[in-house]
Parts: sequence; structure tokens; C-alpha cells
Amino acid sequence: MKKFINDPADVVAQALAGIAAAHPELRVDVEEQYIVRADAPRPGKVALVSGGGSGHEPLHSGFVGPGMLDAACPGEVFTSPVPYQILAATKAVDGGAGVVHIVKNYTGDVLNFQLAAELATDEGISVETVLVDDDVAVEDSTWTAGRRGTGATLLVEKIAGARAEEGGKLAEVAAIGREVNAASGSFAYALTAGTTPAAGRPGFELPADEIEAGVGIHGEPGRRREKLRPARDLVRSALDVILDAKSFDGPVIVLVNGLGGTPLIELYLVYGEVAEYLAERGVPIARRLVGNYVTSLDMAGMSLTLCRATDEMIRLWDAPARTPGLHRGA
Amino acid sequence: MKKFINDPADVVAQALAGIAAAHPELRVDVEEQYIVRADAPRPGKVALVSGGGSGHEPLHSGFVGPGMLDAACPGEVFTSPVPYQILAATKAVDGGAGVVHIVKNYTGDVLNFQLAAELATDEGISVETVLVDDDVAVEDSTWTAGRRGTGATLLVEKIAGARAEEGGKLAEVAAIGREVNAASGSFAYALTAGTTPAAGRPGFELPADEIEAGVGIHGEPGRRREKLRPARDLVRSALDVILDAKSFDGPVIVLVNGLGGTPLIELYLVYGEVAEYLAERGVPIARRLVGNYVTSLDMAGMSLTLCRATDEMIRLWDAPARTPGLHRGA
Repeated sequence: MKKFINDPADVVAQALAGIAAAHPELRVDVEEQYIVRADAPRPGKVALVSGGGSGHEPLHSGFVGPGMLDAACPGEVFTSPVPYQILAATKAVDGGAGVVHIVKNYTGDVLNFQLAAELATDEGISVETVLVDDDVAVEDSTWTAGRRGTGATLLVEKIAGARAEEGGKLAEVAAIGREVNAASGSFAYALTAGTTPAAGRPGFELPADEIEAGVGIHGEPGRRREKLRPARDLVRSALDVILDAKSFDGPVIVLVNGLGGTPLIELYLVYGEVAEYLAERGVPIARRLVGNYVTSLDMAGMSLTLCRATDEMIRLWDAPARTPGLHRGA
Repeated sequence: MKKFINDPADVVAQALAGIAAAHPELRVDVEEQYIVRADAPRPGKVALVSGGGSGHEPLHSGFVGPGMLDAACPGEVFTSPVPYQILAATKAVDGGAGVVHIVKNYTGDVLNFQLAAELATDEGISVETVLVDDDVAVEDSTWTAGRRGTGATLLVEKIAGARAEEGGKLAEVAAIGREVNAASGSFAYALTAGTTPAAGRPGFELPADEIEAGVGIHGEPGRRREKLRPARDLVRSALDVILDAKSFDGPVIVLVNGLGGTPLIELYLVYGEVAEYLAERGVPIARRLVGNYVTSLDMAGMSLTLCRATDEMIRLWDAPARTPGLHRGA
């Protein structure tokens, strides 16, 4: 294993120390392992908390800041955060208007966020949970029952975050988050596996000419292994799956997301193919984002996410955000 | 080779088509192969043009926009742009106040930009050239005489771009760009080589436990191959080289830059080590940036850049920029 680390056991804690040093606009509790906006708690504002295993950066820590999350709870690499960590983050950001937990649908995450929500409720904090399960490649997978939460998490965090920032109430912020998830579908391809620091070797092996179609962000198996095909074919196959899974009867927000080891030049080439095929299929693109946002360590691969966007979602998508991983306007 | 492409010969053109589709705020001439701000030319504003081989994205195409470049000229992968391409871009953005060419120090780039500058001058456009040669790892290398241009290119484009945006004159914009380059030093490590679409295999081979210290952004050899060491040791060795090469007698801007295949979690861990060691060495950090900005396709690796920043440079660094690859403020 070749990585820029000191000791596999200390990677997350030392990366958190680096985030703390790099971002004075954030406050990092290295011991409790959470990251909050430096101005937290904001009285009267609904707070958003997300989290999950590390290794998907910039998700979630890179999306803490005005217009997106109030807090992120990173677990160890590919490992759920623990309930007391989530509770501590929830208490640190609660400004009296309630807290929304944004949870990717993996069994460990779901259970630990649920327990944290119960503990927070016991302490008088109102909590709503938004479950993200946008990955339409498979039903049930290695670490979850139902569909996995992947690229749409970014869209939920951005759009619900904007609604909270402008003064939305707890039920409203949670509702728009759930709407975004329900309107979204994702599908990913892996060319190679990522390597966790603890394992020290790739999470799975692929022959030199094969790819994993429908892979999960922890390297979970997808629909099948298949031969590598031109990007145009892969894009069309993935979009066919997404377009069949849900209704996309109007403008969409498109995310072309790199899984960590794929160069931006390929992601832009992929976006060109997405734009061409969606035009053929009569699906208008309202907004788009191309880059590495929801990654799987150093996996070479990419995911496509479509969200059927209402005018309200587009308005909130366009709102300013000031986070390390996504920055726009003001 | 596993890549999301259609045909190795069409990668750059098809990625440009993707950029054009993704960014309505840019205008892409796919035939002449350049990218300009959609509002170009801006009368009375000094224009900045950069370019070089593709494969280093978001450099340069991702830095076109208000506050940074007016145009980028991408060559084929790891291949210099041609003089007529640079001339076309220069003419497309000239607003009558002159054009600054920002050129990384590789022999092909230098010659082709020089010829383009002569042709532009013949057509009545005033051109100043800022040469970037910040890589202190080696003198002379595979594709260049003197020091290579690497991470500091981003700093030059940001700071000179801000000076042009606020109305700086041609000589002033070029002067601050040269100052930034003179004040900067960089050093890179490769863990693995990148793969160009044309070659179809890694540019060099490294044993499983060895790294290239002082590698160039095209995989050029550095100072030596050595055994992989903890990130803390690698950071300290690289910073020792940089701190010895130039004077850093005051605040610095730090860039911790991924070379394409290194996860963000490692880059933040590295930044933590940089912050700790610079504190020990008495070098104050005024600003910092952590991420993948000047890449080498899918190379696993990272570079460190320090720039001894004057108050004026910091003021310009903080100015708004609205580009796909770097976005801040307004």
C-alpha cells in the first residue's frame, strides 16, 4: 500500500487535525471527531448534521459551512460514526429550531443515527431524519437493506442546507430533503478498487479489461462485471437504468461525480456524453456539476446522478454556499 | 488501460465539448481548441492567457473566468499548444489593454508561446510573458531547461488575474505575476505513474515500496527513487528543500496539491504535517489551499508549494474568483 499517511490507525484523526489547521472557518473537535461551523450554534436556525464512514471526501466534512451542513461526523474509513459522536455534534449545532439528520442508507449509519436521534430527543432537541437511498443499481447490498445512498447526498445537503439557511422550519427543511432524494437516481462504474489504509490492499480485484457496473461507494458489488466499453456506451447504459427507475418528466440537475482516482478530463468527456444522450431522450438539463464530490478513496470510477428538479429545488441549488468542497456566490 | 474515453485520439476534443456543455459561462472553440470567458473580449481590461498540455486539469481550463484567466489553450495530453491556437485565443480576449501570457517552463510551451506573442505583436497586440519555474526539485529535466513550472502556476493565475480584474495595467499585471513566481518554490512526490490515453500504460514503473521524490507533472524523473516513508518524513524532507532554495522570511501561501489519484483525506493529513513543521521552522502561514489543482492525470502523488506572500499578494489572493476549478466570494 502506498499512501501519504503515518500509521493506518491514525489516518482519520490526523486528517481531522489537518482540516482544523486548514479551515479557521470551521471548528473541529478532534477528540469527539466532529466538525462544525465556527459560528455554531446559530440561534433559531434549523441545523443540518450528516456523517458516515470516512473515505468519501469532500463528503461530508467538506460540505460544512454556510448554506450546507452545520456539522459532519466522520467515522473511521468506511465505518459508521458512533451514536455519542452524532449526539455530540447534534448538541453542538442545535440552535433551538431543531436538527435534521441526513443519513445515507447503510445499516450501521441508520442504526447509529437513529440511536443518536433518540438520545437527542431525550435531551429536548427535535430531530428529523432524511434517509438518502438514490442508488438505483441494486436493491440490498453488502452493508445495507434497500437502496444505497450515494451521489444524491450532495444534492440533499445543498438544497436542504439552503432552505435552512434562509429560515426554513424543521419540517420544511426535512421535506425538501426527502423530495430531493425521492426525485434522484444514481448509477456508478468502477474501473479499479480503492484501498483502505486498514486493509492495505484493494477492496476487490478486477481483470485488466473488466469493470464493475453498479458498484457501491465502498466497493460493494453492483449488477455485474462486464468488459470495458467506450464511455459513450457506459453513459447510455447507466442513464437507461436511471431513467427507467424513476420519473424524469422535466428538468434535471446532473451530477457527474468522480470516485477519487479518475481525472477531470475524463469526467468532462463523460458529461459531454450525458448532455448528448439526455438531449436525445428529451430530458432538459437545468443545472450540472462535474467533479470529485462523493468519492471512494482512490477508486478509479464515476457515478451519474439525475435529480428531477422543481423550480424550488433549482432556486435553492443556486443559493450561495461557502464550504471547502463546494463554494458558490457571496 | 482503463479510462472513460471513446478513442484515445479524441480525448481532448471530446473533453472540450463536455466543458462547453457544462459551462455556459465559458465559450469553447472546439475547432481552434481554446476556452474563453463568455464575455470576452473585455474592453480596457488586461487579458490573461495560459495553456499547456492537457492532463493537468483543472489547470488551465478550469481557471478561466472572472478574477483569473480570460483564456486557456489546452494542447493534446502532455503536449504543448500550437502557436496559431495561442494566437487565436490571444486575439479572442484582447480588449485593447494588452495580454499577459502565463507560460510554464517547458521548452515546447516556451517556444510556441513566444512565436504566438510575436505574431500577436505583429497584429498590434501588446503581449507580456510571465514564465513560471517554481519546481525546486531539479535544474533541467526531460522536457525543459531550467526549473519546471508546476503548482505556483495556480498562484500566478489567481493573483495576477485579480490584479487585471481590478484594472491593473499590462506592466503591473505582468510584474505581480513574476513576483509570485520568484517568491514560490514547489516539490512533488509520486507514488504511482499516470497513464496517458495515447500510451495506454503508466509513464514509468515504480516498485511496490518505492516513490519518486521530486517528480515532474509529466512523470519526469526527480531527484531520486526512495523507499516510501511516513507522510511526516516526506513533508519535512520536501519543505527542507523548498525552504533552502529561496527566502521565506515572512508569511506564506501554502498549496497542498494532489496529482490526481490521491484522496483528499491524505491531502488534509499532509496539510496537518505542513502546518506543524512550518510552525517549528518559524514560517507563518497566511493562507492555504488543499486539493487537486495541478494534476498529472491519475498519478497518485502530491506537491507542496510555498509562496512568500506580500500584503499585496494576500489581498489579491483573497479577491473573488468565479471559475469552474476555483471559486470564492461574490
